[in-house]
Amino acid sequence: TLRVTWDLDKAEKSGYEHFMLKEIYEQPKAIQDTMASRISQEQVDLSQEISLSSQVIQQIDKVQFVACGTAYHAGLVGKYVFEDLTRIPVEVDIASEYRYRNPIITERTLVIVISQSGETADTLAALREAKKAGATVLAITNVVGSSVAREADQVLITWAGPEIAVASTKAYTSQLIAIYLLGTYFAQMRGTCTVEDAKQIVSELTRLPQRVEAILEQSAKIKDFAAQIVNHEHLFFLGRGLDYAVALEGSLKLKEISYIHSEAYAAGELKHGTLALIEEGIPVISLATQRAVYEKMVSNIQEVKARGAYLLGLTVEGDQELQKSVDAVLHLPETLDILSPVLAVVPLQLVAYYACVARGFDVDKPRNLAKSVTVE
Amino acid sequence: TLRVTWDLDKAEKSGYEHFMLKEIYEQPKAIQDTMASRISQEQVDLSQEISLSSQVIQQIDKVQFVACGTAYHAGLVGKYVFEDLTRIPVEVDIASEYRYRNPIITERTLVIVISQSGETADTLAALREAKKAGATVLAITNVVGSSVAREADQVLITWAGPEIAVASTKAYTSQLIAIYLLGTYFAQMRGTCTVEDAKQIVSELTRLPQRVEAILEQSAKIKDFAAQIVNHEHLFFLGRGLDYAVALEGSLKLKEISYIHSEAYAAGELKHGTLALIEEGIPVISLATQRAVYEKMVSNIQEVKARGAYLLGLTVEGDQELQKSVDAVLHLPETLDILSPVLAVVPLQLVAYYACVARGFDVDKPRNLAKSVTVE
Repeated sequence: TLRVTWDLDKAEKSGYEHFMLKEIYEQPKAIQDTMASRISQEQVDLSQEISLSSQVIQQIDKVQFVACGTAYHAGLVGKYVFEDLTRIPVEVDIASEYRYRNPIITERTLVIVISQSGETADTLAALREAKKAGATVLAITNVVGSSVAREADQVLITWAGPEIAVASTKAYTSQLIAIYLLGTYFAQMRGTCTVEDAKQIVSELTRLPQRVEAILEQSAKIKDFAAQIVNHEHLFFLGRGLDYAVALEGSLKLKEISYIHSEAYAAGELKHGTLALIEEGIPVISLATQRAVYEKMVSNIQEVKARGAYLLGLTVEGDQELQKSVDAVLHLPETLDILSPVLAVVPLQLVAYYACVARGFDVDKPRNLAKSVTVE
Repeated sequence: TLRVTWDLDKAEKSGYEHFMLKEIYEQPKAIQDTMASRISQEQVDLSQEISLSSQVIQQIDKVQFVACGTAYHAGLVGKYVFEDLTRIPVEVDIASEYRYRNPIITERTLVIVISQSGETADTLAALREAKKAGATVLAITNVVGSSVAREADQVLITWAGPEIAVASTKAYTSQLIAIYLLGTYFAQMRGTCTVEDAKQIVSELTRLPQRVEAILEQSAKIKDFAAQIVNHEHLFFLGRGLDYAVALEGSLKLKEISYIHSEAYAAGELKHGTLALIEEGIPVISLATQRAVYEKMVSNIQEVKARGAYLLGLTVEGDQELQKSVDAVLHLPETLDILSPVLAVVPLQLVAYYACVARGFDVDKPRNLAKSVTVE
């Protein structure tokens, strides 16, 4: 007799070993779905969802991104994106800090709260604080009907689908897409980018799903790299500008599931302290995707290399230089510098995933952590 | 014959084993000297040094603190102090990030650069960038005639005296004093604090030297605590608000001289990832000096305690609660919450010092680091 055995658990994971891996591989679709209905005639059109008049958008004189954990790291990318595209000054704040520090808020302040679940306690409290002080609050969340979505003045949903793994992946990249859409939309309304600039961003945005696919196809190489770090208890991430924001997120992923004590540093700060910790064999993951600071970054990479660090370098397709200074290099598909975080984070998610599996820990349910932090 | 032997090296250190220890003990004098000529009739008077008219000070609509390393941590305190006292929105930026990120600067922006040596390459480049963009630049530096002092529009010297040890101590606390003086002066000019409020701050400022002395007298207890952590390779600092800024500085001190991989966290962010790293015996240094977030902080402390962390708690004189939740407690003398960083950092400096000595490393010249980073 033939016995057909079903693995119900694995069926829910569509054949993937873990929800986290499944969600990493769902990113092309999540990104695509988050963009789909919001691009029209090569421009961003959010007018069906965001009911802020052109005049109100013109009058905003400060943006505050407020969030926790991974969503906070999306906010750090948001600062670069919004300041670059809209020239509105941006602050980024940890929700549990923001709500207690008597932040300066006026009626011309736009507060953008980010929460995958829409139920993060500190983020919700910050939202209420900001509304009370007269700000306009816009929420980026993955859950329609969540508390954050209900209480915010404006909502932009990320269409990432349910995220089950504690370590957030597709929610983060979808949050980034929401930020790019919003930044470009505001820039169009404020006239701070030309129609041509907006077209270029939109055109590159729509190519991101296939580019994420191309990175996922390099997973064997990333797994090999992860195998090199599994016996280490310390690890550093380095980057400048947007790469620093991504480094922080890569470090958090590794920390939360593999329990390797990793820390991300703005590469220029190395010499002001952390360089003391770099010794023979310490793994350092270095991002060098930002063309404007590429030379500076290579020089920081050579500094840690000279102290014996074991280096993985991330750079852009076509760069033949970085491999001379690192032990392993990974080339990311070409895109605009400003969009690079969506691509650069993917190998870092995979490094964390493979390191966790190799170390034998529970990928989807790391110790001490809950999926959404609904208590303070 | 009687032979008198001289230890020239030790003589230079006035009898202290290391420059760092000498400089830690010089803090009451450094603080006193930085305040002395700037307080008159219970108000702050900087009119002899800062030639900004009351009108110019009124018109400032944004402050940007820009610095590296320890001075950057002083800037983080600056954000709280300036926003609280003057209600001017403040950004804090790492100099090596600021100079490359096309920051938003107008003629109403005041950029405050902080550099002990006045020769920090990235800080100097940021200063030039800010001046070119039309900002007013004010420098807080310890070296009269340094590049930063010469090129800034306005200068406030910290009178800490020469700092020799690579790990900065008295320069940091003097930078804090400069920030309090400046914040109070601006608040007086802008009318955002009452004469009575200013009097109270001034009165508490003048008591800080004797309060730092009182902490130094507890050094044996701090040494005992340091002895408990020397065999650990991981350590965390936790704090909220101003305590978080101080935690970052305490962590940097420990990292740069003892080579223990320590990391500081905003306590509310714990549950969003780092809690996964807390296991049996990991030392956690927790600051609970800020009354407004004391209860929240105690609850974070209990979370890490429940996971087996070995806890040192810092709190304020008279608090009999914290000791129930920690393994060792240190009481700081009473002061205003806003001034607490000047006191709270001192035990953290001593922990780093004693840990370094016990681990047998070179206190004054940690590996890989230079006193002032004059290259990029």
